[in-house]
Amino acid sequence: RERRPAQVLFFPAPVTCVRPLLLSSPGHCRCGLSHRESALSCLTRLLISARRSLDVCVFTISSLELSSTVLAVHGRGVRVRVITDSDYMALAGSQVGTFRRAGIEVRHDQDTNYMHHKFALIDGLTLVTGSLNWSAQGIFGNKENVIIIENTDIVKAFVEEFGQLWNEYDPA
Amino acid sequence: RERRPAQVLFFPAPVTCVRPLLLSSPGHCRCGLSHRESALSCLTRLLISARRSLDVCVFTISSLELSSTVLAVHGRGVRVRVITDSDYMALAGSQVGTFRRAGIEVRHDQDTNYMHHKFALIDGLTLVTGSLNWSAQGIFGNKENVIIIENTDIVKAFVEEFGQLWNEYDPA
Ligand SMILES: [Zn+2]
Ligand SMILES: [Zn+2]
Repeated sequence: RERRPAQVLFFPAPVTCVRPLLLSSPGHCRCGLSHRESALSCLTRLLISARRSLDVCVFTISSLELSSTVLAVHGRGVRVRVITDSDYMALAGSQVGTFRRAGIEVRHDQDTNYMHHKFALIDGLTLVTGSLNWSAQGIFGNKENVIIIENTDIVKAFVEEFGQLWNEYDPA
Repeated sequence: RERRPAQVLFFPAPVTCVRPLLLSSPGHCRCGLSHRESALSCLTRLLISARRSLDVCVFTISSLELSSTVLAVHGRGVRVRVITDSDYMALAGSQVGTFRRAGIEVRHDQDTNYMHHKFALIDGLTLVTGSLNWSAQGIFGNKENVIIIENTDIVKAFVEEFGQLWNEYDPA
């Protein structure tokens, strides 16, 4: 596997449909929205490329686009783990309930401070991190950044952070 | 100037005093708090190292530690520019008023979406970016990350983003 150079995506993204990217075989979508490339389609392509594991560690997860992507990855048999914030999890729009009903493992902090990270690890090799909460306002409204990075040391540090939080938030 | 490898800081940081780092000559602080190294002292050292310019683009700026650092950089004659979010700027604790009274240029978005970036550029060469809002809760309470990166392409993209927002938010 060749290491890619670091890359940055800036948001807001134009409102486009990314549903065709989630299909296991190429399909045509007749929804009427634009299907052109955008920061959102880049992010979606990256997440859906997971083959072995997808570890998501995000303060907010309410975006239908990104939660559909996570569900599609899980549906392909990839191991998906989600860490999120307890305070925001309870709010309307959070997709945590949908994840759990689909059988995805979700853990969360237990205190009033925020689990404020916004990163994901694809196959433990590619890090996606930045300011972007996984919400419609984040994707389509705010000024946001996401960095895609495969630097070994940085990825290793985030893999360790994920593992540590995963254990810390074990409800058992 | 040698390019440093990328580095990551995780928060929360222990409560320590970083005041000695802001003095132009080495001094001893008798405040009673610990003065040991931490993620906050690393971040402070980096910001205070600015020699030509410090461009700050953060959703929230209420941390007394980080705002004192920005004021100290300005006080040394370095050009400091700050971009922030209009909604949070109005809240108690924002240091934007202090910055403006000190003569630091501050600009902000004009709409209800968030200027949600949390990055700074030191001398246009080093990027500090991540999930961390510049607030006490962010630094001392939350799970947060900050990446320090000198990758030329990534830094260039953030320099351009800063310049574009700086022009877009010109009140003139
Ligand atoms: Zn469509
Ligand atoms: Zn002290």
